[in-house]
Amino acid sequence: MMKNALFGGVNAAILTPQKDDLSPNIPMLVRHAQWLLANGCDGLGLLGTTGEANSFSLSERTAIIEGVVAAGVPAAKLMPGTGACAITDAVDLTRKAAEAGCRGVLMLPPFYYKGVSDDGLFAFFSEVVQRLGTDKTKIYLYHFPQQSAVPFSLALIERLLKAYPTVIKGVKDSSAQWANMKAMIDAFARDGFEVYSGSDEFVLDILKSGGAGCITAASNINSSVGAKVVQTWTTPEAEGWQKILTATRKATTIFPPISCLKAIMAHHTGTPSWTNLRPPHTRLSAEQTQKLLAALGETGLTLPKAA
Amino acid sequence: MMKNALFGGVNAAILTPQKDDLSPNIPMLVRHAQWLLANGCDGLGLLGTTGEANSFSLSERTAIIEGVVAAGVPAAKLMPGTGACAITDAVDLTRKAAEAGCRGVLMLPPFYYKGVSDDGLFAFFSEVVQRLGTDKTKIYLYHFPQQSAVPFSLALIERLLKAYPTVIKGVKDSSAQWANMKAMIDAFARDGFEVYSGSDEFVLDILKSGGAGCITAASNINSSVGAKVVQTWTTPEAEGWQKILTATRKATTIFPPISCLKAIMAHHTGTPSWTNLRPPHTRLSAEQTQKLLAALGETGLTLPKAA
Repeated sequence: MMKNALFGGVNAAILTPQKDDLSPNIPMLVRHAQWLLANGCDGLGLLGTTGEANSFSLSERTAIIEGVVAAGVPAAKLMPGTGACAITDAVDLTRKAAEAGCRGVLMLPPFYYKGVSDDGLFAFFSEVVQRLGTDKTKIYLYHFPQQSAVPFSLALIERLLKAYPTVIKGVKDSSAQWANMKAMIDAFARDGFEVYSGSDEFVLDILKSGGAGCITAASNINSSVGAKVVQTWTTPEAEGWQKILTATRKATTIFPPISCLKAIMAHHTGTPSWTNLRPPHTRLSAEQTQKLLAALGETGLTLPKAA
Repeated sequence: MMKNALFGGVNAAILTPQKDDLSPNIPMLVRHAQWLLANGCDGLGLLGTTGEANSFSLSERTAIIEGVVAAGVPAAKLMPGTGACAITDAVDLTRKAAEAGCRGVLMLPPFYYKGVSDDGLFAFFSEVVQRLGTDKTKIYLYHFPQQSAVPFSLALIERLLKAYPTVIKGVKDSSAQWANMKAMIDAFARDGFEVYSGSDEFVLDILKSGGAGCITAASNINSSVGAKVVQTWTTPEAEGWQKILTATRKATTIFPPISCLKAIMAHHTGTPSWTNLRPPHTRLSAEQTQKLLAALGETGLTLPKAA
């Protein structure tokens, strides 16, 4: 396991609770954040894919970051998603995160245009770094080809690291391709580049290989078990905990994962509004929820007591 | 050719000129808009894919729509792109376009999450229509699976038309799949649903089949020829004009099309800043520009005198 990673260990790609009008429910988000930090999370990937970041306006995203910090969640624990298709948006939101005290941000590539060149992506990130004009807030690259459809090649990462070694700090790899995570660790980790798995099934593997940890959707419910993997990763005990992580990941993807995780939180906390989410996502039906809870019941996971 | 279409005929997916700091150059955009309207364009698809819409912030997009109208470009000729991943952004920008006097907007589906259900997309557009609360500004659906990676199925269009018959007014089909355009015309045109081709090669076909016209990238340079196709579509003469449209489309896609079209405008107007564009797009090299201009020279197109 990599030492001194800024967000080393278990990070939840935290869900964004919503009021009935689909505006962010910040008090509920704060409660969830504090529950996660009290139950195994080392940090929080605020406003990621699971947090429906791109389904919120820039002003809503800014209000979420500022609201969570104002309510007492430590900014140093937050790695907000600040990627955007527009350079101006990415810069604006990253500045807001920096002003709030965040030490790092997770940045998607511009994801509207497909098939763009590495030269074009390099130019995008160069422009962002230069406009930010500081290396105080670190940038983590968000590799998620299944959703963004715009991958980060190893050659691009190498080029960015060479040009901006004090800013480009790591990557979240949600490709679910172990070979890709391993290749990034082998190529860049010796220079302090932090590799996080976006999928629970690779947490133990990534720690054993010198990666920094994970940032995952299922950490919204299984972070206490993720923490066990981190505590025991050098011992045989870790395998058993890892099995539970892998099983919960599997159970929470039998239907669309954001819908699954919100349904579980609604059930666990007895708060129906937990299932609110923005289209194009949709709520699970009662029947789907039953199937999900049955599948979750077989994973061996016990959720910590609700806040 | 469909009668009484709001944007019937030739519409340019107008380029967005930029200053050296990559902010929108509104006076230059206005000059280009007026040149296009004087040279064959019936309307303008402002802030589409070719206009780099998603590379601009919401506030920049608003300033572009308002700035162009304030400078005297008739709002009735504009179909701005107002699609966004966030419902709140799509509603906000559509309201701004409506307030500026636009009669219709072109709306992408939410394009971050892939593999979403028709139910989820229906819910997204329902939410948008209901929040807008008026049918004064018509919504045109923007089908461009190669870029958005989120297609509109015929079943989804049918469902939207049934639910919001006075709001959902047409589609721009940039799939380059003639069978899909034809299927949409056959299924919906009788109810006044306007089908626009996003590709120049189908202009004559779409007019002959009862479609409304086109909204294309190459119309930034070939709209005077597009107008000839519209004028002569019932006669054999149209074939010759269509050939030029098809050839210019081909010539302007030998490299990435936005880069090609901006290079041509820079050359034609003698204004180097025309090549400014936002990453992830990149400028053509001098050698690429030469190849492009040579290819364009063989199409038979004569550009109207620069403004």
